Amino acid sequence: MTQGRDPLEQLIKMLSRLPGVGVKTATRLAFHLVTAPKEYPAALAHALTEVAERVGPCKVCGNFTAEKLCRICSDPRRDDATLCVVSRVQDLLALERSGGFRGRYHVLHGLLSPLDGVGPEDINIASLLDRVAADGDLPGPVTEVILAISPSVEGETTLLYLTSLLGELVPRVTRIAAGVPIGEDLEYTDQVTLGRALADRREM
Amino acid sequence: MTQGRDPLEQLIKMLSRLPGVGVKTATRLAFHLVTAPKEYPAALAHALTEVAERVGPCKVCGNFTAEKLCRICSDPRRDDATLCVVSRVQDLLALERSGGFRGRYHVLHGLLSPLDGVGPEDINIASLLDRVAADGDLPGPVTEVILAISPSVEGETTLLYLTSLLGELVPRVTRIAAGVPIGEDLEYTDQVTLGRALADRREM
Repeated sequence: MTQGRDPLEQLIKMLSRLPGVGVKTATRLAFHLVTAPKEYPAALAHALTEVAERVGPCKVCGNFTAEKLCRICSDPRRDDATLCVVSRVQDLLALERSGGFRGRYHVLHGLLSPLDGVGPEDINIASLLDRVAADGDLPGPVTEVILAISPSVEGETTLLYLTSLLGELVPRVTRIAAGVPIGEDLEYTDQVTLGRALADRREM
Repeated sequence: MTQGRDPLEQLIKMLSRLPGVGVKTATRLAFHLVTAPKEYPAALAHALTEVAERVGPCKVCGNFTAEKLCRICSDPRRDDATLCVVSRVQDLLALERSGGFRGRYHVLHGLLSPLDGVGPEDINIASLLDRVAADGDLPGPVTEVILAISPSVEGETTLLYLTSLLGELVPRVTRIAAGVPIGEDLEYTDQVTLGRALADRREM
């Protein structure tokens, strides 16, 4: 099993490259796969090949899709007037699970981070501006851009940058509320979040 | 992403069948794979296919191999006179890592468990007896069988059963020592292990 060309050894090596998977976990997974009915590793291999060959970013919004347009961009029932900007596809999926949004999305695939050398040209900002831009003298179709970006340091930088750019192009630019999560004890909420929840208080 | 035929959704489903991997972890792994350079998911798929198509039990000892005989059975430098019996291939690999054994192995692929309906015919015991059996009037090549089986309830059942069978076929049947692990505080060692360590004490 220590020969480099052994298939089981090779599988352990490949699995241990997954995030959060060390050699011990990879070995456990590989033994599960080698003792499972052959259909299972074959189906997993097929799913991986399909993802590698067919899945890429949607030409419009950046969501992952096996088609030219993603499921949301190609859905005629979604509201074209509201555009929700997220940093990652995972955030888009989380918002979809909440069921609270029926507009379109735009995925930045990153956040601005001057310290790490990530500038506006490194994330999907140009295509966002194209989507909301006015068409000649006519206003663009988007009337509200919702920035669904988590308020980290990079998030705040990106929020400020996008707000300044979008403010001239779109009637309304909003950000999702920051505050105390539903069901969380105030005692255990961090002070920055509590401060924001106080400042953003609403009338009953 | 909620359509059944979406490749990414399908990959998440397949990954979440791995032991210890729930839907959240599977989603995290799938997003890592979809954003990684295409070579990585392709190489992982290839490794899985190789394992599914080529790896099976060694015809002699039961170790996993892509050849007819495993690396250890086909190694002429190993000692034919000593045979180490393990329950799982993982245990064989652990013993190989210890570097303390230069004989041959036999993998049972299970332990006797009368309560779960696992009897001698369900694990590789018949092939073990064939390997150690005398050839006519001549003694068999194996002079010692080492039972490297962990002392659980099923382990003890298997140890007793194998000892009674092998005692008539092999000059020497031994089991690996049970005792306090190197570096462990006696304070934290369970009482059964401490009792065994006391009973099996050796002269200094």
